[in-house]
Amino acid sequence: MANPCITWSEEGLRIIDQTRLPGELVEVPLSTVEEVWEAIRRLQVRGAPAIGVCAAFGVVVGLRQRNPQSVADAVADVGELTDYLATSRPTAVNLFWALNRMKAVAGDASASLSVTEFLARLDSEAVAIQQEDRELCRAIGRHGSRLIQEGNGVLTHCNAGGLATAEYGTALSVMFTAHDEGRTFRVYADETRPLLQGARLTAWELVEAGIETTLICDNMAAHVMREGKIDLVIVGADRIAANGDTANKIGTYSVALAAKAHGIPFYVAAPYSTFDLSIPNGAGIPIEERAADEITTSFGHRVAPEGVHVYNPAFDITPASLIAGFITERGILTPPFVFENTPMEAGT
Amino acid sequence: MANPCITWSEEGLRIIDQTRLPGELVEVPLSTVEEVWEAIRRLQVRGAPAIGVCAAFGVVVGLRQRNPQSVADAVADVGELTDYLATSRPTAVNLFWALNRMKAVAGDASASLSVTEFLARLDSEAVAIQQEDRELCRAIGRHGSRLIQEGNGVLTHCNAGGLATAEYGTALSVMFTAHDEGRTFRVYADETRPLLQGARLTAWELVEAGIETTLICDNMAAHVMREGKIDLVIVGADRIAANGDTANKIGTYSVALAAKAHGIPFYVAAPYSTFDLSIPNGAGIPIEERAADEITTSFGHRVAPEGVHVYNPAFDITPASLIAGFITERGILTPPFVFENTPMEAGT
Repeated sequence: MANPCITWSEEGLRIIDQTRLPGELVEVPLSTVEEVWEAIRRLQVRGAPAIGVCAAFGVVVGLRQRNPQSVADAVADVGELTDYLATSRPTAVNLFWALNRMKAVAGDASASLSVTEFLARLDSEAVAIQQEDRELCRAIGRHGSRLIQEGNGVLTHCNAGGLATAEYGTALSVMFTAHDEGRTFRVYADETRPLLQGARLTAWELVEAGIETTLICDNMAAHVMREGKIDLVIVGADRIAANGDTANKIGTYSVALAAKAHGIPFYVAAPYSTFDLSIPNGAGIPIEERAADEITTSFGHRVAPEGVHVYNPAFDITPASLIAGFITERGILTPPFVFENTPMEAGT
Repeated sequence: MANPCITWSEEGLRIIDQTRLPGELVEVPLSTVEEVWEAIRRLQVRGAPAIGVCAAFGVVVGLRQRNPQSVADAVADVGELTDYLATSRPTAVNLFWALNRMKAVAGDASASLSVTEFLARLDSEAVAIQQEDRELCRAIGRHGSRLIQEGNGVLTHCNAGGLATAEYGTALSVMFTAHDEGRTFRVYADETRPLLQGARLTAWELVEAGIETTLICDNMAAHVMREGKIDLVIVGADRIAANGDTANKIGTYSVALAAKAHGIPFYVAAPYSTFDLSIPNGAGIPIEERAADEITTSFGHRVAPEGVHVYNPAFDITPASLIAGFITERGILTPPFVFENTPMEAGT
C-alpha cells in the first residue's frame, strides 16, 4: 500500500474515502469529531484496527474543536468525546480499545499540566496507536507468511488490508510479506456483499501489489474449494472472544464452514487489540445491523420489490472450532490467549 | 403468479423480460429463433423448466421463419434449429430434453403429412411441454407442501418460481401451496449474486403472493441458520445426475454445506425433465462460465479494479449426500431414481 488510509499532520486528520474506491482515490479531511463519527459510520474508514486509529485521532480533533480552558475541562471533554465516538459502530472492539487508551492517558494526566501539554499527550497517544498498529501489522505478516507456499491458492473475505489498518493490513499483510519473500500464489477475493469491500478494496490492494488476484462472488467460495483451488483461508477479525470465537464481516462463517468441509485450514489474522478477553465466547459479541437499502438498492437502482423485509447483519461469529490458528504479532496462537495489555516490543 | 412468464398465442411467442424485474413488468415478443436464443442467453427468460419451454416454442418460431416447402426440409430445419438453440446455455438439461422432444416429433412425422400438418404437430408438442410443466409444478407443490409447518423459516436460493417454469415454480410451488393451505411461515430469500434473481424475482413473486419474505445476502445464510431462523431449505435444480448430485445456481452448494452443519434438511424440487439419468454423477455436468462484467460492474458502475481476474461459474454441484430428498411430481424421492420417459399422468 502506497498510501496509508489515515494521515495525521499539521493539516489535521485526513482519510482515504474508501466508499469511492476503486474508481477514485480521494483523501478527505475530517475537521470535526462529528465528521469522524460519520466517516466511521458510513464506512469511509473501516476495518477494525483502522477504526481504532481513526477514533483516537477523532478524540484529538474533538478536543481542538472544544478548546477547553482547563485540564479538568479537557478530561471531561475526553470522556464525552470517547462516549460519543463509541456509538459509531458496535462490533469492532479495537474502537473501544483505542478510546480506552485515550481515556486512560487523560485520566493519568496530572492537574499540573497545561492544557497545551495535555493536548500534546493525547496527540502522542493517538500517534502511538497508529505507529504501533503499523508495527503489529508488519509482525503479523512476518509470522504468517510461511503459511503461504509456492503455487498456493489463498482465499480471503472482505478487506483486512492496508485500508483496514494503519498500514499493510492483517490478513493481507501475510500475503504482501509472502509476495515480498518471492513466492508466487493466487488470491481468491470474495467480493463481500453488500458493500463489496472485497471487490473494491481487497482486489485493488492486491492488484496494486502485483499479486495475482481472482475476484469471485461470496457464494462461489465453496465451489472454488471443491474444485481444489484453495489451499488456505486467511481473514481478519473485528473482535475475538476469550475462547477464540471470532466476529468478522458477514459471510466469514460461511467460508469457515466450507473450509472445514474441504479440510482447508482457516486462519484469522489480527493484532492483540482485536482480542476481547473480557468476553468468554462469541455469544457476547454485539452484531451490528445495518440499513436495508445497502441490500435493496445499487447505485440508486432498486433491485428488490417494495414490501420485502430485509435482514442486514454486518458481521457473523465463526466458532473457534473452525479456526486453525490466529496469526498475531506474537506468532500463530490458539486459545487460551494471554496478552499483557501493553504494546508489543519494537521489532518483535 | 398472475402472469405466466411465457405466452404462446396467435400473436406469437412473448416472454416477461426478467432482466427488468422487479422495476418493470414488461412482456416482449420473440419473433425469430435468434431472438429466442438471445433471450435465453441473456437470462430474459431463465430457470431450467422455463428455458425448456421457451426453446420448444423457439423451434416453432424458427420453422415459421424458414417457411420450409416440404416435410423433408422441415425435418432438416428442426435438426438445425434444435442444434442452434442447444448452444444457448449448457447446464440446464431441460433445454436439451425439450429440444429432443421436438426432434422426436419431427422424426416421427410421416412423409405423407402436409407441411402445415407438420408445423401443427410441432406447435402442439411445444404447447404440451408447457402445459405438462404447469401440471408438474402443481404436483410438486402438492407433494412438498407438508414439509412446511406452521411458523417455519424456509430458505431458498435463486429463483425456482413461476418465472423459472411454465407457471407456479418448483421450490416456490411448494411454498405457494403451503400458503394456500393456510399455514403462516417466513421465507428467507438469498439475493443470489451476481444477477440477483433472489432479490429481483423470488422476493417479488413471494411478496406478490402475500408470503412473508426476508431478503438476505447469500453470505448471510449460514449466520441466519446459526441463529435458529431456518427449519428447512428448498431450492430448484438445473440438472440432477443419476446418483442425485445436483447442479443449481452458484451458491447452492454453500447453502447445502451450511444446512448440513446445522442439521437443517435441504430439499431439491424439480420435475422429471430435470433429471439426467444418463450422467452417473455431478462430475459429468457441464458448468456454464459467464462474463466477468456480471461481477465487476453494477448498473454501469465499475466495482472492481482493472487488472483483476474474475471467475464466474453460473452453477455449482451439490452432492447427493447433502440432499434430504427430491420433491418431484411423483412424491419426495431419493436416489436411485426411476422415471419412465413420458409425461406424468394428468392429475397425479
